Amino acid sequence: MPKAVFNEAAEAIINFRNTGLSILEIGHRTPLFESVLNEAVQLAKELMHLDNDHEVLFLHGGATTQFFQVPMNLLNENQTAAYLDCGVWGSKAIKEARIFGNVNVVASSKDKNYTYIPRGFKIPEDAAYFHYTTNNTIEGTEMFHIPETNVPLIADMSSDILSYVTDFNRFALIYAGAQKNIGAAGVNMVIIRKDILGKVNRKLPGMMDYRQHIEAGSMLNTPPVFAIYVCLLTLRWLKNLGGVGAIEKLNIAKSELLYKTLEEKAGFEPTVAKEDRSRMNVVFLINDAVLEKRFLDACKEQGMIGVKGHRSVGGYRVSLYNALPIESVQALSTLIHQL
Amino acid sequence: MPKAVFNEAAEAIINFRNTGLSILEIGHRTPLFESVLNEAVQLAKELMHLDNDHEVLFLHGGATTQFFQVPMNLLNENQTAAYLDCGVWGSKAIKEARIFGNVNVVASSKDKNYTYIPRGFKIPEDAAYFHYTTNNTIEGTEMFHIPETNVPLIADMSSDILSYVTDFNRFALIYAGAQKNIGAAGVNMVIIRKDILGKVNRKLPGMMDYRQHIEAGSMLNTPPVFAIYVCLLTLRWLKNLGGVGAIEKLNIAKSELLYKTLEEKAGFEPTVAKEDRSRMNVVFLINDAVLEKRFLDACKEQGMIGVKGHRSVGGYRVSLYNALPIESVQALSTLIHQL
Repeated sequence: MPKAVFNEAAEAIINFRNTGLSILEIGHRTPLFESVLNEAVQLAKELMHLDNDHEVLFLHGGATTQFFQVPMNLLNENQTAAYLDCGVWGSKAIKEARIFGNVNVVASSKDKNYTYIPRGFKIPEDAAYFHYTTNNTIEGTEMFHIPETNVPLIADMSSDILSYVTDFNRFALIYAGAQKNIGAAGVNMVIIRKDILGKVNRKLPGMMDYRQHIEAGSMLNTPPVFAIYVCLLTLRWLKNLGGVGAIEKLNIAKSELLYKTLEEKAGFEPTVAKEDRSRMNVVFLINDAVLEKRFLDACKEQGMIGVKGHRSVGGYRVSLYNALPIESVQALSTLIHQL
Repeated sequence: MPKAVFNEAAEAIINFRNTGLSILEIGHRTPLFESVLNEAVQLAKELMHLDNDHEVLFLHGGATTQFFQVPMNLLNENQTAAYLDCGVWGSKAIKEARIFGNVNVVASSKDKNYTYIPRGFKIPEDAAYFHYTTNNTIEGTEMFHIPETNVPLIADMSSDILSYVTDFNRFALIYAGAQKNIGAAGVNMVIIRKDILGKVNRKLPGMMDYRQHIEAGSMLNTPPVFAIYVCLLTLRWLKNLGGVGAIEKLNIAKSELLYKTLEEKAGFEPTVAKEDRSRMNVVFLINDAVLEKRFLDACKEQGMIGVKGHRSVGGYRVSLYNALPIESVQALSTLIHQL
């Protein structure tokens, strides 16, 4: 998250908009909080150029909640949903969907440890929906193209939403845990085209029913007030920076610089197929124990933390989410070249 | 929430424990956050004197999530759960439970607008569990006694947990949205006696399965990091103050002063049966339009906000949660006497 957001968030905890109250104690059914929620929704719509058929919700939980809330709302027991299996998160989503109906895994890159994005797969016309993960944080792949299909498209964009320009209106449902590019942990942004709802025949608990959340304007129960406020601050920061197009240019520059460095430096090796490399998560190996130690020592010395890969795959991973300044990538690039 | 907590929470957003990092950006799988979570769990266990059979979880969502997560985990389709219907929240919980199995409403105070707590009801021995709401925020009733039964006891303690000494170990499951007495909106505290789990025969989504959360130590997915940190600060504050016994004394003094004032002042009338009055939410009517206007004007002048009753019942409501200092109640009492 951007540093400027931290300062504003801290200020709101002490004295929110000069009310003398903390954002942590204001009622959620007050004009004060309603203005926060409304502005966050409007900014999200504006930044993604959403049409009027799409609603923006801020819901409790993380993407893992959406893994089951999606099929619970959209997949009848006797229906089949199509899923792309491109990494740890997508395979977890598949597991949850199977509780509610049938799953057709139309393609998988598991054969090569999820180091590429499958191409040329077919989405059956009668699938209830097609689900995929746009960016795989752990494996470092990213899928920028939107599949051509008449089946409702559903995307887990937790880790690359708002990082590049795309036609968000082509999706029937997008969800994103806030903690990468939208805000802090504890809230999901869910974007829904309303016409896909109300077709499932199971009874839904109120908190799981997208329609009830839409009717209540994300205020079905006490929302995660502070987490939504942090989203608002982050969305404002993005707008002031020039919006999604502007951040995309920066994200391209950041990721190109890092991949170029890794390819030039002997002993360093990006693990992902060139055409599928993520701009958000750069995953690589170091094929030399001495170099590896020098790299880790240098990172520690310069206070660069969190370069270790995810516990499930090993190796190294550098995350370049929206808020990371290009200067940090330049510093890392210099560090690697000087090893 | 206590003012001291706001200052510490704001500081952690700028510079968490002198790391130079914000609590909003630290990884949840770091020793930094693990120490937060562990301390919060230990403090909760200590303050409630929980035995080793009880686990403390911090889960995404609010109590409304627990309304359905409880029956989803504990009630088979052909089983019956016993519920007490004592207010808006309890009746919502009943509605959700009916999605998963049968509900036997063993008693209700709906006949008198939920202004009392039913007594002398029977809990069938074969009920899967017995569920009740210990404090009804909207109607201003509170149930301090724990029913005698062999059936697993489940309580929604969202609005009075940690406000008085009780035998928390007698409950099979306790849940509480954090925003009243534990912290800020966006996290639930759930206390579970492990032996009640694993008996339901439906497939549970991972995020809904208490057993998976217990195994993962509340880290099944990215937890609501900041909300949990605010819980920790609030629990520490309570411990430093002397614990649950000490806050109970204050809560008794606060509520007795306010109820006494309302009874002494002509035109003011508490709505709840004397023996069932909540110490957390004092609900009353003003039977005189001129007095009512003077009361509202005086509140406004002195910056006392939020005295309006819940939109669903009208009247007036003053909330006296743990963090409210007795001085505020004394000021309100003086204000009412001087009208």
